[in-house]
Amino acid sequence: MQVAILGAGAWGTALALHCRRAGLAVRLWGHPPAQTLALQRDRENPLLSGFQLPAEIAVHSELEPALRGAELVLVVVPSHVLRELLQRAKPYWPTSCPIVSATKGIEDDSLMLMDEVIEDVLGAACRERTLVLSGPSFAREVAASLPTNLVLAAQHAPLAEQLQKVLATDRLRVYASADVKGVQVAGALKNVIAIAVGAADGLGLGHNARAGLITRGLNEIGRLAQAKGGDPHTVSGLAGLGDLVLTCTGDLSRNRTVGFELGRGAQLQDVLAQLGHVAEGVLTAKSAHALAQRLQVELPICEQVYQVLFHAKPPAQAVRDLLQRPLRRE
Amino acid sequence: MQVAILGAGAWGTALALHCRRAGLAVRLWGHPPAQTLALQRDRENPLLSGFQLPAEIAVHSELEPALRGAELVLVVVPSHVLRELLQRAKPYWPTSCPIVSATKGIEDDSLMLMDEVIEDVLGAACRERTLVLSGPSFAREVAASLPTNLVLAAQHAPLAEQLQKVLATDRLRVYASADVKGVQVAGALKNVIAIAVGAADGLGLGHNARAGLITRGLNEIGRLAQAKGGDPHTVSGLAGLGDLVLTCTGDLSRNRTVGFELGRGAQLQDVLAQLGHVAEGVLTAKSAHALAQRLQVELPICEQVYQVLFHAKPPAQAVRDLLQRPLRRE
Repeated sequence: MQVAILGAGAWGTALALHCRRAGLAVRLWGHPPAQTLALQRDRENPLLSGFQLPAEIAVHSELEPALRGAELVLVVVPSHVLRELLQRAKPYWPTSCPIVSATKGIEDDSLMLMDEVIEDVLGAACRERTLVLSGPSFAREVAASLPTNLVLAAQHAPLAEQLQKVLATDRLRVYASADVKGVQVAGALKNVIAIAVGAADGLGLGHNARAGLITRGLNEIGRLAQAKGGDPHTVSGLAGLGDLVLTCTGDLSRNRTVGFELGRGAQLQDVLAQLGHVAEGVLTAKSAHALAQRLQVELPICEQVYQVLFHAKPPAQAVRDLLQRPLRRE
Repeated sequence: MQVAILGAGAWGTALALHCRRAGLAVRLWGHPPAQTLALQRDRENPLLSGFQLPAEIAVHSELEPALRGAELVLVVVPSHVLRELLQRAKPYWPTSCPIVSATKGIEDDSLMLMDEVIEDVLGAACRERTLVLSGPSFAREVAASLPTNLVLAAQHAPLAEQLQKVLATDRLRVYASADVKGVQVAGALKNVIAIAVGAADGLGLGHNARAGLITRGLNEIGRLAQAKGGDPHTVSGLAGLGDLVLTCTGDLSRNRTVGFELGRGAQLQDVLAQLGHVAEGVLTAKSAHALAQRLQVELPICEQVYQVLFHAKPPAQAVRDLLQRPLRRE
C-alpha cells in the first residue's frame, strides 16, 4: 500500500519510519523546500536526530508527486497550517483515498476540529473516509521502536478496523475507536492542561497538586468532548488519559515549559521568544476558551490558563481561584 | 470535635497534622509502644522527618485512652494488620462513631476490602457509619500544607457531605462520593499497576509504554471496581486516575521500586530484603489475582505482575505477552 505523509516534523518523520516497518511504501512530504531538500540529501531529520531514513522512504518537497496514486494520506502538520496545506493539496488529491489526521488542535476563529477543517476544504464526501490518530507517543520512542499504543478513530467503523491492521506492528499497537470528536478534543486540550501542570510545578506546588490537576483536567476535557458529541469513555482511554499523562509527566514538553516558566515568574513574551516557536497549547487555550463559551461548557482549569496567558493574571492567583471553588461531589 | 487516628506511620502522622489544622482535637495512636513513646517525647516522626507535632496533638500507645469519647476514628494502618487492630480496639469502641478508613488493600485469604473487614469485626450496624478516604496524597506534601485533593466516600451520602466539611481546609480539598467499593478497589490496585510501570521503566521501555500501562491499568481497575459493585466513573476521578498517576509518576514509591529492580533483572527476594518491609502492592497482587478469579474478571496487567512476583516469570516475557494480546477496540 502506498502512503503519503504530509508533514516532516518529528512526528511525521517518526510515523514515516513506522509505516515503512509496517511494510508500506512511504512518501514523506515536507515544508519549507530547503529543509526538505536537506532531508532528502542527509536522510536524517534534525528534529529527530539519530534516526536514519531508509532509502525506501521517498522524500518530496512538492505535493503532486507525493500524492500521486496514494492509497492512504496522513496529515501531520501544526493545526494552524492544516487548512492552507489542504487547499494547496486539493488539486492533486487522490480520489476516495482515506485521510488520517495526526494533527492536534482547534482552529482559531472557526473553532473547528481537524476533521471539520478537512471536510470544509475537501468536501462532505470525505467525511466517511476521515480518521484521526492519537494517543501517548513521543516521536523519538516510536522512531526507536519502543512499545507504543495509539487510537485510530473513524465515524465509519469498518474503515478504522481495516486500517488498524494496516498500521499496527508488534511494537506499535493500534486500538480502533468510533469517537472521532472525543479523540480530537482530548488531543487538543491536553496541551492546555499541560501548561497548567507546568505552572503548578513552577510554583512548587508538589506532586499531589499535579495529580489533582491532571484528574480534574481530564474531567473537563470529558465535558467539552461530550458537548462536541464525543463518547465520555474516550477520555479515560489512550487518546485522553494516556496522552495527558504523557504530556504532563514525561520530559518537559514545550507546553509544560511555557507553564513552568510562567509559574516561576517569567513573562509570556519572554518565554515564547526563548522557545522560538509557539507552543500548540497557547493557541488551543484561546480557541478552547472560545469554543467552551460557544457550547456553554465550564472549563475551570482551561479558563485560568487562558486568563494567565492572555490577560496577564498572576499564576499564583489563578491557582488560588481554582482552590477556592466550592466543595462538591466528584 | 474529638478525632482518634489509629496508625502513626507517615500518612497517619500527616493526617494528624492536617486534622489539627482543620481545628479538630487530635489523638494519635501508634504501634509498637517503644516507637510511639519516642514520638511522644521527640514530637517528630522519623517516617515524616522535618515536621514537629504541635503540643495539642496527644500521642497514645494504648488504645483505650485514644478512643475514649472519640467522635470520629480514622484507621491508617497497613491492610494486613487492620483486622487485628480492630479486634483489639473493639472493647473500647465509641458507640455510633463514624469510622474513616485510609487503609488501602485487599485482605489476604478473605479477599475483603477494608470496609468489609470493618463490618466483619465491628458488626453490620457500623456499615452506614463507615467511610473511606483516598486520593493522590504524598504524606510529606500534606504535612507541608501543599494543595491536595482527596475523596471521602460513604454509602450513607449525608455522612460524607457532613464530614467533607469537617475535614476540608483551604489547602486540602475533600470531594464527597457515594462509591465506597470503587474508591477502595482503585486504591488497592494502583499499587499493582505501579509495580508493572516500575518494571517497564526498569526494562527501559520509555514514556509511551508507561502512559499505555497507566491507561490500560486504569481500565482493568475499572473492571474489578464494577465487579465489586462500584461506579465506573470513580476510576476516572481522584481515587482512581489521580492516585494511579501519582504512584506511577511521582517519586519512586516502594511499589515502583520493586518493579524497577525486577525489570533490571534483580530477584524478588533480594529486592524485598533490601526494602526491609513488604511493599503493599506485592500483597495486593496476590489477593487481586484471587479476587479476579473469584469474580471472573480479566486483569491482564495484574495477572502478569502476579506471574512475575509469584511464579518467577521473566519481566521481559511478561511485557511481550501483554503486547501480543489481540488488537481490539478500545
